[in-house]
Amino acid sequence: MTKFIDFYFDFISPYSFLAYKKIKLLKDININYKPILLGGLHKLGGITAPAFNERKMKNMKNDCEIIAKKNDIQFIWNNKFPLNSLSLMRGYLAISDEYKENYFNTCFNAYWRDNIDISLEENLIEILNKCKIDKGLFFNKIKDEKIKNQLKELTNLAFDKNVFGAPTFIVNDKLFWGQDRLDYALDEYNSI
Amino acid sequence: MTKFIDFYFDFISPYSFLAYKKIKLLKDININYKPILLGGLHKLGGITAPAFNERKMKNMKNDCEIIAKKNDIQFIWNNKFPLNSLSLMRGYLAISDEYKENYFNTCFNAYWRDNIDISLEENLIEILNKCKIDKGLFFNKIKDEKIKNQLKELTNLAFDKNVFGAPTFIVNDKLFWGQDRLDYALDEYNSI
Repeated sequence: MTKFIDFYFDFISPYSFLAYKKIKLLKDININYKPILLGGLHKLGGITAPAFNERKMKNMKNDCEIIAKKNDIQFIWNNKFPLNSLSLMRGYLAISDEYKENYFNTCFNAYWRDNIDISLEENLIEILNKCKIDKGLFFNKIKDEKIKNQLKELTNLAFDKNVFGAPTFIVNDKLFWGQDRLDYALDEYNSI
Repeated sequence: MTKFIDFYFDFISPYSFLAYKKIKLLKDININYKPILLGGLHKLGGITAPAFNERKMKNMKNDCEIIAKKNDIQFIWNNKFPLNSLSLMRGYLAISDEYKENYFNTCFNAYWRDNIDISLEENLIEILNKCKIDKGLFFNKIKDEKIKNQLKELTNLAFDKNVFGAPTFIVNDKLFWGQDRLDYALDEYNSI
């Protein structure tokens, strides 16, 4: 049986971006990419996101900048944080599998490496162009009830598995929360 | 000028306990022990403690147990968590300096190493006996308005410095939150 690390992410989350950059360096590890809507998850869990607390927000910015520096990750704190990632996350579900990896990289890099306001349609279009994704089809599909429900459903499923934040790793039915817990997830993975 | 790491703690906090065990292994580092009332701090900051969220609580228990294991720290999750640490924290301020270190160690170990309900007066008395602290004097002093106000004042001062959780380290005016950020605090300390 092939083993996996489930990686729950939302493009809005700077810590998910840092985790993704760490994951990219891993070799011979199977990752299941699990898109969720972080705002929806917080709502289900009765959690106020750190972005909405002045002191936590300030700490998160400093903390992310230190982590990025220590891990040689190009990172710029995006002043348009937090923004609504709904279209972007629906987009991940709307596109065919062959585009997903490129779209995933391009969205994360645009928001957390290149300081781009990805809530603006013109910037989203630039991402689609870069990924050679058909704009018309994309914008139609992200309005589709099927896609909308799919993101809701995936978020509910994550919540049912006790996920309450992003990034979260689940491996061997064990949950690890936070980019700095990727090592623990890998330990669990290697112990299987 | 002597340099310091300010270490903000509350006995109620399992992550403060883990940080304290790591700090004990450090050599040639000056630590300023900064008692605060975590509940009061959360209230000032409009923060709901993870202990009051089912999923966060479950994650915290697992996470602390892994950290303890990885760092060879004797640790038992206390089922009487969370409890009111007010008397204990006031006690830290009430006793004279010569008793503080022993009292500090004994309270933390009782709660997070030995699984003792430190909110019970009989268990608090045992801690005082171990530390050879005069019970009568102790119980009088923790009811004293001066001590009560001192803990409030220290918590307010911490909040003014942007502290919002425990453990927090402040060094060179830079704030680091969480036992897993002790390394960053040490990097800052060593850079001075």
